[in-house]
Amino acid sequence: MPSIQIYDTTLRDGAQKEGISFSVVDKLNIARKLDELGIQFIEGGWPGSNPKDIEFFEKARTLDLVNATLVAFGSTRKAEGEVETDPNIMALTNAGVKAVTIVGKSSAPQATRVLETTLEENLNMIADSVRYLKEKGLTVFFDAEHFFDGFKADASYALRTLEVATEAGADCLVLCDTNGGSLPDEITPAVKAARKLGKVSIGIHTHNDAELAVANTLAAVRAGVSHVQGTINGYGERCGNANLCSIIPTLQLKMGYDCLSEAQLGKLTEASHYISEAANLVPDSSLPYVGASAFGHKAGLHVSGLQRWSGSYQHIDPVKVGNQLRVLVSELSGRSNIIYRAKEMGFDFPPDGQEARRLLEQVKLLESRGFQYDHAEASFELLLRRAKPDYQPPFELVDFMVVVEKRRRPPTHENSEGMLSEAMVKVRVSAEVVHTVAEGNGPVNALDRALRKALLQFYPNLAPIKLMDYKVRILEESTGTESQVRVLIESSDGVDDWRTVGSSTNIIEASWLALADSLEYWLVKHRP
Amino acid sequence: MPSIQIYDTTLRDGAQKEGISFSVVDKLNIARKLDELGIQFIEGGWPGSNPKDIEFFEKARTLDLVNATLVAFGSTRKAEGEVETDPNIMALTNAGVKAVTIVGKSSAPQATRVLETTLEENLNMIADSVRYLKEKGLTVFFDAEHFFDGFKADASYALRTLEVATEAGADCLVLCDTNGGSLPDEITPAVKAARKLGKVSIGIHTHNDAELAVANTLAAVRAGVSHVQGTINGYGERCGNANLCSIIPTLQLKMGYDCLSEAQLGKLTEASHYISEAANLVPDSSLPYVGASAFGHKAGLHVSGLQRWSGSYQHIDPVKVGNQLRVLVSELSGRSNIIYRAKEMGFDFPPDGQEARRLLEQVKLLESRGFQYDHAEASFELLLRRAKPDYQPPFELVDFMVVVEKRRRPPTHENSEGMLSEAMVKVRVSAEVVHTVAEGNGPVNALDRALRKALLQFYPNLAPIKLMDYKVRILEESTGTESQVRVLIESSDGVDDWRTVGSSTNIIEASWLALADSLEYWLVKHRP
Repeated sequence: MPSIQIYDTTLRDGAQKEGISFSVVDKLNIARKLDELGIQFIEGGWPGSNPKDIEFFEKARTLDLVNATLVAFGSTRKAEGEVETDPNIMALTNAGVKAVTIVGKSSAPQATRVLETTLEENLNMIADSVRYLKEKGLTVFFDAEHFFDGFKADASYALRTLEVATEAGADCLVLCDTNGGSLPDEITPAVKAARKLGKVSIGIHTHNDAELAVANTLAAVRAGVSHVQGTINGYGERCGNANLCSIIPTLQLKMGYDCLSEAQLGKLTEASHYISEAANLVPDSSLPYVGASAFGHKAGLHVSGLQRWSGSYQHIDPVKVGNQLRVLVSELSGRSNIIYRAKEMGFDFPPDGQEARRLLEQVKLLESRGFQYDHAEASFELLLRRAKPDYQPPFELVDFMVVVEKRRRPPTHENSEGMLSEAMVKVRVSAEVVHTVAEGNGPVNALDRALRKALLQFYPNLAPIKLMDYKVRILEESTGTESQVRVLIESSDGVDDWRTVGSSTNIIEASWLALADSLEYWLVKHRP
Repeated sequence: MPSIQIYDTTLRDGAQKEGISFSVVDKLNIARKLDELGIQFIEGGWPGSNPKDIEFFEKARTLDLVNATLVAFGSTRKAEGEVETDPNIMALTNAGVKAVTIVGKSSAPQATRVLETTLEENLNMIADSVRYLKEKGLTVFFDAEHFFDGFKADASYALRTLEVATEAGADCLVLCDTNGGSLPDEITPAVKAARKLGKVSIGIHTHNDAELAVANTLAAVRAGVSHVQGTINGYGERCGNANLCSIIPTLQLKMGYDCLSEAQLGKLTEASHYISEAANLVPDSSLPYVGASAFGHKAGLHVSGLQRWSGSYQHIDPVKVGNQLRVLVSELSGRSNIIYRAKEMGFDFPPDGQEARRLLEQVKLLESRGFQYDHAEASFELLLRRAKPDYQPPFELVDFMVVVEKRRRPPTHENSEGMLSEAMVKVRVSAEVVHTVAEGNGPVNALDRALRKALLQFYPNLAPIKLMDYKVRILEESTGTESQVRVLIESSDGVDDWRTVGSSTNIIEASWLALADSLEYWLVKHRP
């Protein structure tokens, strides 16, 4: 199989995404992860643009990468005749790397209107910079900025910039769709024209401003490029860069190219999640191949289809990219989803289907009241357990009362002082009734604390359980403050995590239901 | 310019996205918004699959759509010889619509392995269902499920299903990439083969499992389809459907096709945000064309480039899709924003800029505490008014207390009985202090009622004011029930509507702040 070189720029172009701010330690960890995934080139940063990236390249010397070569990024020299004293170029030669990427303008109007220089001097900037870095013994990638827009505006000048870089010794010419607005139809002829220039290898670097970054990359590969640049999860400025998590499996599983080993491809989902964690971004569940929903099925028709033929509603086997099939339970789903999920949890239904049908009706009824089980598998499991006549709950609520007070203060937006939230909870455990009270930072927090305080007397091993996430959704928004409210809670004991749901027109009750389910679920799972 | 018919399935296929659960009211509002945007066909739901969709089609009869035709979705008949008594088909003819979409299998292995029927009977199911619905005088779209995978497996059978639907009178054959794994190279020849069959119009329906839904749709248009199905924001099962917010502007601005009027296209960003709000999903800022970051630029090279040439770093003029250039907030651009917004509201600041700077500091402080004024212009206006030394608020809070009780009931998910919510509010109006109490359906509703009860004694013209919308967002999700909470409220007096914001770690206080702002704003605007 022909192979395609993968070049990751998550640490440089990806870090331009609004909201991302990697520390040096994050960057080192991500580089390690990318190396483990089998990426060939990792662009670590732009040492000429900020001190954090200089520090990264210093510390990266001890990284001991197995598969990857680290690359430093920079722009062409500025003042004529001063290549070796150009601060940007010096930062590259001082970065301690074997490969560098140098960006230059490939568009005539960009050179004259934005760089405000002559077309000739722009060519000299490219030639001088590439030649100097080659003399220093470095592998040099030339990023042809605005190549595709430049090709439309003045094709011969755009190609001339590539020739100049080639003559100066560049190892690879990377054609950039910098503004991200090109169509696949425009990519193909421009890549073919570039390939005609000579034998030097051609690369592609696209942005997603028309939601075509992946398609444009694949079109470029079809047209003969052998080097692909992108980022994990498609992170990047504006609408993002080409998403390697989509490109790599498509090239490998659908188009017959070689990028990673099978075992490495199996780590793709893990790498995607790892990097979204490092970026402190909630993983996008709808990401192709690697998202939590990518192989999730809600419709009953689809689930019963999948049971007959695993290829019926999924385009690849999710295991190949380290992901998995997920069956969701909702009002849109049929009996087969319920039976499937129940089986996964170790529950068997009598074959007549009566019990499953009853449970489906119950799910539909509860969903019409605002519960939603596709994200709350722990509440769903409790629903199954409670349907059994011999189910013994580990605790039962007798009653609760929550008081929220605001005293002696004119209405101001400036602080939350003067607020008091207190919850009184009475629960029964076996034959004993315990009555506790706790204050909290808001009424739900007070309720949470009071319930734990009550239960810890009986179940001290509950102590490490933490609420990781608390979400509120208003369901019927047009009815104002009388709306139905759904609360979703994610909990963790440090090893596992689980999700529960509560719904009511009363936010306190909805929160109570989700809180109580969270603790009940854990207690049931860890019964001696 | 050749025109392309746009068919939106946000309300049916889009609603399959994990986490989306539209109410009937949401669906009606979204249909209105899509109509306003100029969408030609709106698929409202699958009345044969759930009661919510039956209710939607009943209520939709009074929608008075101007541009759009409402479509009901269903599957082909099941038992032989029983078309008119098939529940799915009956639900379609009872939906009160002029157009229906009927889905049938176009893949031989899907028919035999999943539907578990013969190839011949599958053709009969398609023919019988289409013919019957045509006899009822309906426009019939035939969704050829799994067409592209079917074309790969057995091209002549896949084409045969299209012929059968055509012979039975289908008005449009919609080729579906149901599993979303096809490549543009595979779409083109299959569409061309389908076009050779006859004169009936061909449509395309793609999914995004390989991040190619938009590219596959565009490839199909290039190959001759005249009807495009997709969803707003690309919502949909697994990795989503083809994103109309990317497809429409690309077809229109880059490929020369006609879809919407210029004025309608200018509402695209607004429609995208409206529908993400209705879905209660945080708008994805990196969405092409319509995302908040789509034309966002960090200070530096790109910003100075843009000042020299607006086309230097953006692929289209954002105004065309109702979006805008965003230069990431510097202290200076922040101040000019505030001055601009204040001027719009009729406030003038002294030219020395002191007052504007103070206000900017205050906004920054409040935003760091979770307030957000982009969508809460009424709270922003109150902020401006309160900054004036002579501001007289129409009422002031002295204190409040809210009690929520749940009594004598084991924890159950089945109803909200046994809940009591009561709010006691003390407010000062001029020199008078009034102390009221009210019960409500939840603590916020109780607070709302008590406050109105107190104020109505002084301001009886407050009576028609209604809360239209109440939204809750948890800001720091990882800190569990102690999280910062933001409440956004939309109010209306039947003529105007306005939005206010409150933020606190205490949801009751956050709600109070937004509620109080809502009434204070109206009273200030309507002072005699």
